[in-house]
This record gives sequence, C-alpha cells and structure tokens, in this order.
Amino acid sequence: MTHVFDEAITVTARPDGVFSATTHPAYDNMVGPFGGITAATVVHALQQHPDVLGQPLALTINYAAPVATGTWDLHTRIVRTNRTNQHWTFTIEQDGHTVSTGSAVFGIHRDTWADTEATRPPAPEPADVAAQDFPDFVAWARNYDKRFVVGGIDDKSDDSTSTLWLRDLPQRPLDYPALASMTDAFFPRVFLRHGTFMPAGTISLTTYFHATPDDLAAQGSRHVLATARGARFGNGHFDQHGQIWGTDTLLATTTQLVYFKNPQG
Amino acid sequence: MTHVFDEAITVTARPDGVFSATTHPAYDNMVGPFGGITAATVVHALQQHPDVLGQPLALTINYAAPVATGTWDLHTRIVRTNRTNQHWTFTIEQDGHTVSTGSAVFGIHRDTWADTEATRPPAPEPADVAAQDFPDFVAWARNYDKRFVVGGIDDKSDDSTSTLWLRDLPQRPLDYPALASMTDAFFPRVFLRHGTFMPAGTISLTTYFHATPDDLAAQGSRHVLATARGARFGNGHFDQHGQIWGTDTLLATTTQLVYFKNPQG
Repeated sequence: MTHVFDEAITVTARPDGVFSATTHPAYDNMVGPFGGITAATVVHALQQHPDVLGQPLALTINYAAPVATGTWDLHTRIVRTNRTNQHWTFTIEQDGHTVSTGSAVFGIHRDTWADTEATRPPAPEPADVAAQDFPDFVAWARNYDKRFVVGGIDDKSDDSTSTLWLRDLPQRPLDYPALASMTDAFFPRVFLRHGTFMPAGTISLTTYFHATPDDLAAQGSRHVLATARGARFGNGHFDQHGQIWGTDTLLATTTQLVYFKNPQG
Repeated sequence: MTHVFDEAITVTARPDGVFSATTHPAYDNMVGPFGGITAATVVHALQQHPDVLGQPLALTINYAAPVATGTWDLHTRIVRTNRTNQHWTFTIEQDGHTVSTGSAVFGIHRDTWADTEATRPPAPEPADVAAQDFPDFVAWARNYDKRFVVGGIDDKSDDSTSTLWLRDLPQRPLDYPALASMTDAFFPRVFLRHGTFMPAGTISLTTYFHATPDDLAAQGSRHVLATARGARFGNGHFDQHGQIWGTDTLLATTTQLVYFKNPQG
C-alpha cells in the first residue's frame, strides 16, 4: 500500500521536462496545501531528474501565492554542475502564473573532518510524551505524530520555542523529501506567543540538509526531535530558526520568514 | 567623495532592464569578488527598480561559480507583487554563463505586535576592543573595521563562534546593501576550528532583513555587533548561522552553506 506522503509527492516528468504534480487533500493547510509538502515534492522531483548530481544539500522555496487545489507544473533548470555540487532553480506554475520560486543545491558527500557543535535539546523519550492533535481544519498535521516537549499548539509562552518528537503517521522511513517537509512542520511562532491563532504564512523557507544517506538509513522511521524558535517579531513579519535531530545526529537546519497579522482582541 | 562601497555597488540600468555592474578590486576575495559585495550590489539594484515595493525583507543568493573580474549582468524578474510583499528572482550572467542565482522578497513594514527574543552577545565597547587585520590577500576585509570579541582570524577554538564589532572603513551610514554585505563578512568557521586557512567558499547565503528604515537611521555609521557559529561540519560542507545587532536592535539574521576541503597537515 502506498503511503499517503508518497501519494502526495508523486510527480510525472512530461516529455518537455516539466514535472506535473497534484495537490493532495490529506496535506491541505488553511489556505492551499501545506508548504512542507510542496517543498517535499520539489525535492522528490529533482531527485528523479536524470542529470541530478548527488543528494540535496540546500533548498530555498519562496511561497509567492497559495497553490490552488489541483495540478501544478514544476519547471526546473540545472544552472551549473561543478565537480562536487550542482545548482538548480525552479518555479511552480499554475494557470500561467508563478506561485512559487526557489533554488536548490545538490552535491556529493566527501570524506572530510567532521564535528557537530549544536547540541540537541533535552527531551524525554517519545513514548513518555503525549501525542497532540492540531485543530481539525489543519488537515496535513493529521499525517504527523507530534509529541511536544515544550511549546505545544495550545500553549502560550514568552518563549517561542517548540520542541517536539515528530514522525510520519503511519511510520515511514526518513528520506530527503520527508526531511524537507518536516522542516516546515512547525506551527507559526506567533500562535505560541499569543496563545491564539491569527493570519500567518511562510513567505520564504531555507533548509540545509546535513543528513547523509547513511544518516537517513540509521534514522529509519523513528521520531526526529524538531526544535524551532523566532528571533525577532515585528512590522508584520518574524523569522524562525530550527533544527531537526536524529538520535544524536543533526539532520537538517532550517530558517523561514513568516508573514503575520495582529491577533484580534 | 564617493565611498568605495558605493563605487563597488554601482549599477547601470540598461534600456532592456538588465543591470550592468563591474567588480571592484577593493572588494576582491581570494577567488573572485567577496560574496558580500555581490549580494549588496543585487540589493542595491533591486532598490533602484521603478516597480519595487517597500524594503528588502529576504535575500537568497547562490554562488554557482566565481564572478570573473570585469563587468557582469544582473537579470531581475518581479514574479509577483502582493498587497504587502513582492517576490523577485535574479541571475548574474557573465559571457553567456550564469554564475549566481537567487531570490529576494521586498515588502512593506506594517505596524504590528513586536518583540525580540534573541539576545545580543555580551561585548565590551568597540573602543575597548582592538581592531584586527586580515591577511593582505583578503582585499575586501581592508574596507571593514573589525574588532573581535571572540573568535578572531588568528585563533583556534573548539567553538566556531566569532563575535565582532564591524563597520565600514571609512565610516558610512548603514543601509540595506551594507547590511547585506556584512552578513557575509565572517571568515569561514572551519578556519577558526583548525586555526588555519583551507579551501572554503560560500555556496548559498540567505539573509533576513529585520531592520526598518528607522532602525537603520538610528544605527547610523556606528559599529554593528556581528556574531556567527557553525552547527554541523562534515562531508565537505558546514552551515553558519549569524546575527547582526545594533545597540539593542536585531538588524538581520543570516545563514549560509559553505564548502570546504580538509586542511593539509
């Protein structure tokens, strides 16, 4: 049986090289699809390209307009292939309009000196943390098992940090598209600061994939520990900085710029 | 007298809408120009565009190949103008080849709830910290007054954090191009970890501009406090996460993916 995530990120390469994708109702957000599933679909498509070099290293995706329900076209371009990395640009087109733009870097993992300086936030084991549901109108969140260690969806805090155990529901071995999606799976930090929903949406997302294929294989389908926090809020925007951890491996770092409107009342 | 930074970021809009720029020897790096001056020139050009909306909010620039000494063409596209923000893509072309790609978001600063959660690193006053020179072959660094509080260019440390007072030399009032440039003014974190130079270069840089025009005016030409650290190093790459602070204002956050080769010996 095909996992719903794999259904959602399915792409078809047309003879002209354009990838065709279709929104999946299981990953709907409040307006348009969940940005994480769009990012995941792009990563999945680039991985299918016959001329791809290596694995995803970096992805920036700009959400210029909501993706409408239905099919969308992904136009990709290999800008340059160097010895160890490859630069891509892409756009997502619907009905003659560009709704997203972005860039990606793929590359070869070479054997070099290595160290991780970031430290994983403390957290009890996933089994010792309660799973939490998002409100029903956030369809995509039903495809994730979410166990908040701090900063849950019903909380209000002066610290915008959320740290949660996260995994696909049903379980699914971690791969690059799934990791891309997870880097957008934090709810907007302003909700946590105000203890309420308000209009908010990601404008631009950048993710660096530190995980090697071996790291992903070691992770399997276990929970990742995801953490994110805002640095400055104001003037209609805030930033979010996050990390996705395996057991003791930093799998990805991510940052995004988010639009928000003041809460009413 | 024109400041050397303004000379370096000068662009000319041709009738076809393409901006023409020229590398400036004062901002040369080891191979090609300093990436910060290229980013600054892009920001400066977009600000000149007759259809620009508001101020820079986000910039991603991908350094696909070194810019060669001489002129380069900046092709820009307004992808979409929303009510409060505007999405751009751009490429830098030389001799029929794309050497850089990127995207930018500009937008309106609206009056909303505001808070800064990040905290400025402690630092003595700039006058109480010694200015430090980079090696002579790093030409661009001579245009910055650099006063390292921790993690200077001659140091070796298990913590890749550099925190420094930074300002243009000679002094120049801070604006968005200057801020963009400063977000790339950290030397590669692997140098600090190994206490030595090695081949390294930025692959992709993303900067979020939190500063409003009022914040920039309040900053004037005083030093900013710049801080950056790597999270994970390995497999030929590392990430860097940084902040640029005014007196108590977070002016910008920045992240970049960097290529490196093992140090010899």
